Amino acid sequence: MTDVLPRGALDGMKVLDLSRWIAGPFATMLMADAGADVIKVEGLLGEDARHTAPSLADSSAYVHHYNRNKRALALDLRDPRSQEILRSLATDWADVIVENFRPGILERLGLDYETLRLANPALIMTSVSGYGESGPDSDRPCFNTIAEAFSGAMSLTGDASAPPTMSGYFAADHGTGLYTAIGTLLAWVERQRTGVGQRVELALTDAMFSLLGFALTAKMNDLPFPDRSGNRDSATAPADLFVTADDRPVYLDAGTDTLFRNLCEVMGTPELADDPRFVSNEARIDNLDLLHDRIETWAASVPFEVLRSGLDRAGIPFSAVNTVEEAITDPQLRARGMVAEVTTEDGQRINVPGMVLNLSATPGRIVSAAPPVGRHTVEILHDLCGLTTDEIDELRRRRVIGTHEPGQAPSNPAHAQQPLHEDVRIKDEVKAP
Amino acid sequence: MTDVLPRGALDGMKVLDLSRWIAGPFATMLMADAGADVIKVEGLLGEDARHTAPSLADSSAYVHHYNRNKRALALDLRDPRSQEILRSLATDWADVIVENFRPGILERLGLDYETLRLANPALIMTSVSGYGESGPDSDRPCFNTIAEAFSGAMSLTGDASAPPTMSGYFAADHGTGLYTAIGTLLAWVERQRTGVGQRVELALTDAMFSLLGFALTAKMNDLPFPDRSGNRDSATAPADLFVTADDRPVYLDAGTDTLFRNLCEVMGTPELADDPRFVSNEARIDNLDLLHDRIETWAASVPFEVLRSGLDRAGIPFSAVNTVEEAITDPQLRARGMVAEVTTEDGQRINVPGMVLNLSATPGRIVSAAPPVGRHTVEILHDLCGLTTDEIDELRRRRVIGTHEPGQAPSNPAHAQQPLHEDVRIKDEVKAP
Repeated sequence: MTDVLPRGALDGMKVLDLSRWIAGPFATMLMADAGADVIKVEGLLGEDARHTAPSLADSSAYVHHYNRNKRALALDLRDPRSQEILRSLATDWADVIVENFRPGILERLGLDYETLRLANPALIMTSVSGYGESGPDSDRPCFNTIAEAFSGAMSLTGDASAPPTMSGYFAADHGTGLYTAIGTLLAWVERQRTGVGQRVELALTDAMFSLLGFALTAKMNDLPFPDRSGNRDSATAPADLFVTADDRPVYLDAGTDTLFRNLCEVMGTPELADDPRFVSNEARIDNLDLLHDRIETWAASVPFEVLRSGLDRAGIPFSAVNTVEEAITDPQLRARGMVAEVTTEDGQRINVPGMVLNLSATPGRIVSAAPPVGRHTVEILHDLCGLTTDEIDELRRRRVIGTHEPGQAPSNPAHAQQPLHEDVRIKDEVKAP
Repeated sequence: MTDVLPRGALDGMKVLDLSRWIAGPFATMLMADAGADVIKVEGLLGEDARHTAPSLADSSAYVHHYNRNKRALALDLRDPRSQEILRSLATDWADVIVENFRPGILERLGLDYETLRLANPALIMTSVSGYGESGPDSDRPCFNTIAEAFSGAMSLTGDASAPPTMSGYFAADHGTGLYTAIGTLLAWVERQRTGVGQRVELALTDAMFSLLGFALTAKMNDLPFPDRSGNRDSATAPADLFVTADDRPVYLDAGTDTLFRNLCEVMGTPELADDPRFVSNEARIDNLDLLHDRIETWAASVPFEVLRSGLDRAGIPFSAVNTVEEAITDPQLRARGMVAEVTTEDGQRINVPGMVLNLSATPGRIVSAAPPVGRHTVEILHDLCGLTTDEIDELRRRRVIGTHEPGQAPSNPAHAQQPLHEDVRIKDEVKAP
């Protein structure tokens, strides 16, 4: 427990988050974790993701996952006064805007980059869209699965005899979110040097495509490359999923001659390593089905704990194929601080994922849970836009703005005047509970 | 065509790339695309990835995919003089080191962060490992598939009735590579402010785990969350893969009442939208198999082009499930510049993926193909380490260093003294060929 928040590399960066769904909110979450002051703008009923199942505390698991550490501003953007407020934040306050509106919306709100840069030349605007802002498909709607289908990602995943398969974890959205953070940080680096902002533009489909790896460079140059092959590594053998006697799926990779020899020892059939059908990686690939059957039969004959200690002793890379529940309770991920805790507005303790990045000098922090809709509307309008209490009351009465009613819950520790200690969860504390 | 290279946000950043396989090299590639001067260090025979199939030009598709825009230095790190050279680059030249050695190796080479920071306090060292440097599993070997298995990613992917399924595109490695870039950029931002470097540490397993999205926050709080469901979206219906009469797989998402009504029109069965079994998303989820059958039957009765124009007219999000080959030739990805071209040392034109990030002021660039082993050893030892030609010749003779023999190929345009124009491919040019 410390008297001040742990430093973050983005302390002082001011971000207006106009994005919805995963990619944008995930990127601004990473920035908020690193210390940026992120204001998330929603309509008066909150973003749609607040109503996505399952619900959690005062909102949804979805919102609590992506919107910790942010402030919440609720504006009815159909009202000209709300548009004016947003424009004033964009020109007088924000360093960075992250947005994923459909084409044309920003222009209608007077928030397009060309307009804003005249008033705020230091502004960085990062725009995320499905297919990108150029090209014949730029107006088409796109979601994560559509991007996985379009880019070729699905075609590489699943069994050879089964249909192409989507990831179960929004691979396109999350990959795009990481790219969104990188693009914004590059612009921030440049701005630190020159004082001038710029536009950053990227697409879900481009991002997913780029993440297919060297299959792309192979196929772009008309070289052969294996199609989807279930869980079998196509370059080395054996590397595949096997199931133990007690029904635990295990992924093991013994695809070098040395590792394969060690595996044969563990299996109690050392002579297999010298069998001409398995003696080299090439031979093993040529006799893959036979090899797979031998290992499958062995795995099915031993309980997981026996297999585990054998593979461990032999230094063979492997892992139980964990369910998410198993991963969450795994001692390694716990020791790494990957399960963190925050307190919601109404005092409920909830879990959220920890931080992946461990920076020695600027560790960043997880300080607050995702706020309720409009939780910081009053302080933002008063402190940043210079509105009087009377003006704010009037806007609230006219339902131009949404506020979280005072007295409902304590002030949000992340942005309070006084440093509050009780709700500060820093990574080091989580790591050594 | 321009007289100078397009600016990059990382122009002037000096990176010593000691990493192998995907995550590290991908991160340093993103930095090189953004203008950083990246020196990739290999043994005299080159990194193992040079021998990964398929081969391409003077190396492999793998190496050409991840190592464009970099310089190549070949050192036999078993030799003390090579270790000394590497230490001098780390202390006198590098701003950033990216490494993924097994535990203990850096210490043995005298290249651990605690030693280097004494001589170079501004140094940023980013270390990537399988399970991370702390926790009970920190010494275990880990590859992409192991991380996908361990983190829960595989358990979320594939059909409910089939085994857990790996991604076909190294999801853990690429996700970790993007995080590696973000962590390094955060440290770079801090260094611009303070002049002081720091250590950045991250793990493949933490990264993959974090990329599972809000399933984590749901399950961390003991909330119900759907298990893997093949290609079916678990929250809205219909959103799934269907196959047309001419055998094209198509992913379509009509999971709102309005989109579903439009889909029913396209299918020629408008009355389905008012059928009590399908009238709301909840009802459609309850009758998912029945609904799926109806759409499947329709899709199987129409050729792709008919389905496409119908869905397009109705504004329903969909995409053909492209193979990688289809994606590569797709007009949208081409228009976005996602297929770029570089020239190898021996004058061969090859394709590599374009850049995802479009920055208006600092676009960055793809200037050169991955160099042959040791291509820049001589210039690096001479220009950066101050070695004389005689000393360099002596080291080459003793096989302490590897050099690309002079006269074999023209000078690498990316790092030549004079600006060369012919081989510069900037994103804008690629976009509008």
